[in-house]
Amino acid sequence: MFNIKAIIKILGFLLIVEGAFMLLAFSVSLIYQEHDMIPLLKSALLSIFIGGITVFATRNAQKNISKNDGFIIVSLVWVIFSFFGSLPYLISGSIPNLTDAFFETMSGFTTTGSSILNDIESLPHGILFWRSMTQWLGGMGIIVLSLAILPVFGIGGMQLFAAEVPGPVPDKLNPKIQQTAKNLWAIYVLFTLVETVLLWVGGMTLFDAINHSFTTMATGGYSTKQASIAHWDSAYIQYVITFFMFIAGTNFTLSYSALTGKFDKVYKNEEFKYYVLFIITFTAIIFSGLLLSTRLGFEQAFRDTLFQVVSIITTTGFATVDFLTWTPFLIILIFALFFFGGSAGSTGGGIKIMRIVLLLKNSYYELRRLLHPNAVIPVRFNKRAVSEHIITNVLAFFMIYLIIFFISTIIFTLIEPDMDSAMGAVATSLGNIGPGLGKFGPAENFYSVQPVGKWFLAFLMLLGRLELFTVLVLFSPAFWKK
Amino acid sequence: MFNIKAIIKILGFLLIVEGAFMLLAFSVSLIYQEHDMIPLLKSALLSIFIGGITVFATRNAQKNISKNDGFIIVSLVWVIFSFFGSLPYLISGSIPNLTDAFFETMSGFTTTGSSILNDIESLPHGILFWRSMTQWLGGMGIIVLSLAILPVFGIGGMQLFAAEVPGPVPDKLNPKIQQTAKNLWAIYVLFTLVETVLLWVGGMTLFDAINHSFTTMATGGYSTKQASIAHWDSAYIQYVITFFMFIAGTNFTLSYSALTGKFDKVYKNEEFKYYVLFIITFTAIIFSGLLLSTRLGFEQAFRDTLFQVVSIITTTGFATVDFLTWTPFLIILIFALFFFGGSAGSTGGGIKIMRIVLLLKNSYYELRRLLHPNAVIPVRFNKRAVSEHIITNVLAFFMIYLIIFFISTIIFTLIEPDMDSAMGAVATSLGNIGPGLGKFGPAENFYSVQPVGKWFLAFLMLLGRLELFTVLVLFSPAFWKK
Repeated sequence: MFNIKAIIKILGFLLIVEGAFMLLAFSVSLIYQEHDMIPLLKSALLSIFIGGITVFATRNAQKNISKNDGFIIVSLVWVIFSFFGSLPYLISGSIPNLTDAFFETMSGFTTTGSSILNDIESLPHGILFWRSMTQWLGGMGIIVLSLAILPVFGIGGMQLFAAEVPGPVPDKLNPKIQQTAKNLWAIYVLFTLVETVLLWVGGMTLFDAINHSFTTMATGGYSTKQASIAHWDSAYIQYVITFFMFIAGTNFTLSYSALTGKFDKVYKNEEFKYYVLFIITFTAIIFSGLLLSTRLGFEQAFRDTLFQVVSIITTTGFATVDFLTWTPFLIILIFALFFFGGSAGSTGGGIKIMRIVLLLKNSYYELRRLLHPNAVIPVRFNKRAVSEHIITNVLAFFMIYLIIFFISTIIFTLIEPDMDSAMGAVATSLGNIGPGLGKFGPAENFYSVQPVGKWFLAFLMLLGRLELFTVLVLFSPAFWKK
Repeated sequence: MFNIKAIIKILGFLLIVEGAFMLLAFSVSLIYQEHDMIPLLKSALLSIFIGGITVFATRNAQKNISKNDGFIIVSLVWVIFSFFGSLPYLISGSIPNLTDAFFETMSGFTTTGSSILNDIESLPHGILFWRSMTQWLGGMGIIVLSLAILPVFGIGGMQLFAAEVPGPVPDKLNPKIQQTAKNLWAIYVLFTLVETVLLWVGGMTLFDAINHSFTTMATGGYSTKQASIAHWDSAYIQYVITFFMFIAGTNFTLSYSALTGKFDKVYKNEEFKYYVLFIITFTAIIFSGLLLSTRLGFEQAFRDTLFQVVSIITTTGFATVDFLTWTPFLIILIFALFFFGGSAGSTGGGIKIMRIVLLLKNSYYELRRLLHPNAVIPVRFNKRAVSEHIITNVLAFFMIYLIIFFISTIIFTLIEPDMDSAMGAVATSLGNIGPGLGKFGPAENFYSVQPVGKWFLAFLMLLGRLELFTVLVLFSPAFWKK
């Protein structure tokens, strides 16, 4: 019933791709001539070799891949990438044990950005480059996934935008995917280049500029510095990064429209409007709160607020200040942002703006339905009536997200008894953000978590990154019965 | 457009009823000959007098009451009752200021049970009796409201059970309400009597037995003792109260069915099954946790667990132990129960079992829908397909509940900066439970909250008690435009 050979072949092929990117990291290490050269080369060759054998062994696989095969491939890719992606850390000794290395790599590929590293600056350049690269690749993967693959599965917010393809969802993967992917990747690469130049001009080394562009565009949040963006005491750098985090949290098809001159598509997009609205609202409240509760100057308070708000809502997780030093009212506002997330079709994780907006609208409309019980009042989005089916799906997503958040927090208190820390760790992993609360704030890291807790959080990252359903269907008996 | 005269007339009439019940408290005070006799008499006469004038002034009001009038009446009754219900506390000096007295009374009428009293035993018997009476009356009100009035509004879970009345909802209040109400009140009174006898036999004074039966059946949780039920170190009393809390958290129409011999209706009721299932599950986990983490004996650990679980899930809020002294894992499990609530049609508050079950079912069914995108898979409840409309309504309720919880917690951190305490206070008020977390645990009370915070929590109690929508529609512009 499953086309197992084809599944293995695709995974093998992707592993070769991963190995190729490791070679890129290897070439970076060559420039710096540090001790990570051989480890990176070994990792790359091992990945390519195993991938190659696998593809060769399954060369006669049939090409037809069903939707159910797709579910398996997507979930497994992230897991396999994270195992092989750990090799450079393990072989070079930068992260000597598997749990930590896997956590760091999964956190990379899921563009989460939670780290176990206590002294990032001590790592050789090739390894740092590979670390940023995992996020950049993860972001690339998410763009294809959210814009081309998940809609075919009936998962993710993009169905709303795919209204030009009505009727039953095709059961085979769409051949158009390749062209869509190429266009979007082109934009992704373009933005990365532009940001690199702007950061380089602003005083970062070229190496740091590239790394931070990688992790900004992926809304990942890995930095080459222990202090994250706070390392650069530069308003210019902070505003540039804020701007690109904002772009990375925007639907990439919208950026494509804007770049091709179709600005009306941007103005008319309701998700984008609310995305901007939420950022403005939270920035305004927190900015006022900071002015009232601290002695920060006007510009500094504004910049700190905007940076943190954009960093969290886009699920990037870069830090310029430790928001846990703010008053509780402001901390909990930031924590509320943990449950927003970027736009659908961006590299951002979390619940996503579109879902939040649909949930809010449906709640408000329910009041109107009460007052007019016989009227049909559908929720409208982008000026179109949204079908009940999509509303139910979005609400189910939200409900499952919260159930997972709540149950995981309960379980995690067995590992980390402080409730705030547990809530923060679970929310930040599930939302692919990076920093948490309590013990795991922006100034801390996840090194101290017990091994079982690290595997648990890594699983949550995967769950959140793949929009829950992609992974959860694998646990449904109906999936395996069919 | 609104029948204002009729609204005022009904409110006036109900105020007379409230006054009559104050006379009952007055007669209790006569027995004990304490200083609260005159204050109770004054309060009663004042309420009856004002109510009487109001009814007289509006005697020629037209009888037709619209649904929208109903929304206003229901919300206002609780507010007016709480203001006049504060009189005994204020006049007797038992609670000398309005904020505290209003908080205590609203907490009573909404059957919440959060208190501001630091020395309950010092209060005279008449006042204590009035305090318990507010909960008992509140419970009575909720039974009519949830089983007879809210379904007419299209609010609350009972539509699911009212499947024998399909088609559009009638716009006038149903004349059958009176008969239904009488039957259910009869059961309510019966259970109260039986519990009183059982507690009296078990060693409580008759006065304490009556008071605790009042507040048990209302799932209110006010006690005549500062230490709540822990005051009686009696397994018998604790099990009796556990049993009646369980009954009070059950749909009263089910109890009616059971008492009239229709046991099959009880077995077949899915909400009841899950209610029992949730209690068993949480009790099993917490019981195991207590055995592992403390040195409590087997029976003691079981009784402590069962009592606390039933007390919280039914939103009663009685305490026999301070669950905040347990390990964080168990505390957070108890906190999870804050978001369950009793059955629809019980006196319990909160989100309610039926909604939780529908939400869980819809989430699970969504996975099946993903695997079979072309199949129509409705959620089934009590073996009937549940309409999309009800699912959307239930999901909207849940969403609004959470939004209110989250925003209120954020606001409340401005008043009470400790996040756990803020979360607990908001969740316990909105769920009509009683004890919270942090500073407001079972061993503490709400005395220390700033006045504005007390009014805020009192509003949340009202909002939660009236199933959100009843109050929220009043804030919708469409309600006033029509």
